[in-house]
Amino acid sequence: MAKYTFFTNPLSRAWIAWWALHEVDADYRPVIVNWSNKPDELARANPMGKVPTLVHHHEGDHIHVVTETAAICHYLAEAEASELAPRDEERADYFRWLFFAAGPVEQATTAKTMGFMPTPEQEVMTGFGSLERTVDTLESWFSQNAYVCGDRFTMADVYVGAQVDWGLRSGTMPKRDALARYADAVRSRDAYRHTEAVCAEFLPEQSDDA
Amino acid sequence: MAKYTFFTNPLSRAWIAWWALHEVDADYRPVIVNWSNKPDELARANPMGKVPTLVHHHEGDHIHVVTETAAICHYLAEAEASELAPRDEERADYFRWLFFAAGPVEQATTAKTMGFMPTPEQEVMTGFGSLERTVDTLESWFSQNAYVCGDRFTMADVYVGAQVDWGLRSGTMPKRDALARYADAVRSRDAYRHTEAVCAEFLPEQSDDA
Repeated sequence: MAKYTFFTNPLSRAWIAWWALHEVDADYRPVIVNWSNKPDELARANPMGKVPTLVHHHEGDHIHVVTETAAICHYLAEAEASELAPRDEERADYFRWLFFAAGPVEQATTAKTMGFMPTPEQEVMTGFGSLERTVDTLESWFSQNAYVCGDRFTMADVYVGAQVDWGLRSGTMPKRDALARYADAVRSRDAYRHTEAVCAEFLPEQSDDA
Repeated sequence: MAKYTFFTNPLSRAWIAWWALHEVDADYRPVIVNWSNKPDELARANPMGKVPTLVHHHEGDHIHVVTETAAICHYLAEAEASELAPRDEERADYFRWLFFAAGPVEQATTAKTMGFMPTPEQEVMTGFGSLERTVDTLESWFSQNAYVCGDRFTMADVYVGAQVDWGLRSGTMPKRDALARYADAVRSRDAYRHTEAVCAEFLPEQSDDA
């Protein structure tokens, strides 16, 4: 039995957690989930029925369930005792930007995609302020740092990098030179390319069923 | 010099990070930030100018900056080697619910507050689906677990607990028995009450200036 069961879909943001699995070379079994076909196994693990959902199998029937893409990325780095887990002196940057991407960036790009634009009064109340300020803040960091933790690629770059990569490709994030350079750097990871190839194999299964 | 500089405001969600500082009994200096008066010291640490922002002072002039409320909570638990940091077997639940609260819960309650309601088609695209499903998912967990990691209060409960506490008090989150019980449990923490008292001392400074 594989160490992890990974509920996923190649056409969703679960892609990011898939990439994380390959970064740590995890022993996993993918279960492709379609909107029209949600396995009972997933409903038991995650009542929200969302992908990605990761089930970590331990001795006996003992399991751990992890949901939320950023949580899965970080969990894998620690559970696999990976070099990509943060070192002590990297923890401030690592968690700062992981939560910045999972919170304000995700919220600002979703709001834009849905046509929800906060008024100036509402901007003060939201965690993201505005998409423009959120992107300015990322740009300011990546103008001075190659990666989230400075010179070294860590698991935080899988999540933050995927957000920037997707934001630039989909046009939900305005183009900035520093962000384009960062996206190029993360796309050059072997595990990124390998994940693209693995996902491509599962695309027909998705199309047949959708 | 205090070990941490904490940029905050007693009338903002920075309250949660303030509570975290008291949970780990941190040596900190609070700097009250008003919208009309943002110190240069904050702009240097965080170009977004948001509270909460935490500066961790090390030997010499070396500093670490942490932003994002959930990141600050977790960072403090680890930096202070607190009992509230997750044990190995708690990491799945701890990070799952920390990111669930910082992502879907924050996004769903903000959307409700702003009057942004996703259409059924948009619900499929968002990470939170709907506020109802998000709250159902939390309710399902806290019907079976006293805290995020089961029987033990951890730093994840400061962040998740504060979200539930605030959601129920402000009415942005529908009332559910399991959530009300959980909110009561977190409100009974000594550090929660102490933080209320400390914040109250700073309220006049806020009012004079606002």
